[in-house]
Amino acid sequence: MSEISSGNVRKVEVVCSPELFPVYFDNKDCVVVVIDVFRATSAICAAFESGIKSLIPVTSVEEAITYKQKGYKVGAERNAEIVEGFDFGNSPLMFKDDRFAGESLVLTTTNGTRALEIAKEANNVIIGAFTNLTAVCDYIERLDKDVLLLCAGWKGRFNLEDTLYAGAVAQKLAKNLRFQNLSDSSMAAIDMYNNAKDDLFGFLGESSHRKRLSRLNMEEDIIYCLTEDLSDVVPILQGDTLVSHKE
Amino acid sequence: MSEISSGNVRKVEVVCSPELFPVYFDNKDCVVVVIDVFRATSAICAAFESGIKSLIPVTSVEEAITYKQKGYKVGAERNAEIVEGFDFGNSPLMFKDDRFAGESLVLTTTNGTRALEIAKEANNVIIGAFTNLTAVCDYIERLDKDVLLLCAGWKGRFNLEDTLYAGAVAQKLAKNLRFQNLSDSSMAAIDMYNNAKDDLFGFLGESSHRKRLSRLNMEEDIIYCLTEDLSDVVPILQGDTLVSHKE
Repeated sequence: MSEISSGNVRKVEVVCSPELFPVYFDNKDCVVVVIDVFRATSAICAAFESGIKSLIPVTSVEEAITYKQKGYKVGAERNAEIVEGFDFGNSPLMFKDDRFAGESLVLTTTNGTRALEIAKEANNVIIGAFTNLTAVCDYIERLDKDVLLLCAGWKGRFNLEDTLYAGAVAQKLAKNLRFQNLSDSSMAAIDMYNNAKDDLFGFLGESSHRKRLSRLNMEEDIIYCLTEDLSDVVPILQGDTLVSHKE
Repeated sequence: MSEISSGNVRKVEVVCSPELFPVYFDNKDCVVVVIDVFRATSAICAAFESGIKSLIPVTSVEEAITYKQKGYKVGAERNAEIVEGFDFGNSPLMFKDDRFAGESLVLTTTNGTRALEIAKEANNVIIGAFTNLTAVCDYIERLDKDVLLLCAGWKGRFNLEDTLYAGAVAQKLAKNLRFQNLSDSSMAAIDMYNNAKDDLFGFLGESSHRKRLSRLNMEEDIIYCLTEDLSDVVPILQGDTLVSHKE
């Protein structure tokens, strides 16, 4: 490891809201991990694990309608529910069989697809969820760039679940000497993940979004989204389209 | 406490960067606690404890120069150091005697005075530091409004020390039934404060700003800024000027 000096240790920074992305984004050649644990990025990972060919994230329902009119299968979620007239929302359980295998899907969600749009300025954009945690870390280590862990949050606000996941990634990466240049936000996220990791579901008991999903009877989704390493697929952005990369 | 329903429990939200203030600010009649532990708000509290009459926060060095030319005693700090030609920076230790007693001071700092400027949209703006922690909580409880704990951060980024303090305030307030409507960010800050409270200095050992101050031999400042309840003065904003309120 003699080639590692403090000068080329990679930065690992947690960005706890898309609104803060411009503050942290100072190196175009970094890798941005887009995180929306409940549930957009968990659903996207599940979709690729089930064999879809590609997924086009779009920010507005209007854009989503245009794709629908062209014959695409299109998902749309707002405020945790499927928008009427669309094929699916952001539940990962929609992809537990292979009904969409080989297809090119389109998706818009409240927070996740907006975070993806903002992240596009970076050269490398990937999708992170607890369900592909180890694959994401392996991919980043191999790529060997500065890392921004971009939490989608809730309408610009900090949320617990995305920051917990960011802490899980930062902690795994920090075991590698090359990824030990941690921001204050990464230290806080790691600290919180260590407190929570033995019972993520319980830790999130009072969180705003778990309560929101529980009210909608989505406990099964929550449990799925908090399960580590169900997939070794890392969805990566190529142009405007997510495609599958297998670690 | 029969008058308390979930409808009128006060919101307590941590805003971990001034950039996020617009996202959280949805009720003008709230109280905003401006937090810049290292060191602007600790210095402002120390200045009032030492008997100054008032303090005008300004955002630019140019404005500060204008006041200097009018004969005011003016402080200016950028990147943790006193700007040349000014009377003081943001070290609270500058106010350990009463040399400025009775005076109206002016101050500009890298992060703290900018956060104050952003907070001015709210009806009630106060200054928080570990050194006046209990007085701040008492003031908020008496005022009985929704609370935004506004962390100045470092140039828009999350920092550990301001969020720790926000967690200390949120936790103290949450003992009162009226202040139990916590945001995800408040829950995270409380969790972090509980981890750190027995050794705040040690917890901050790797934080970016403690390292920055340590390089400048400011350990004594750090220890001062992490000491709870040295003062029962709450600086409050009246128009463009901070004045003293004693709990």
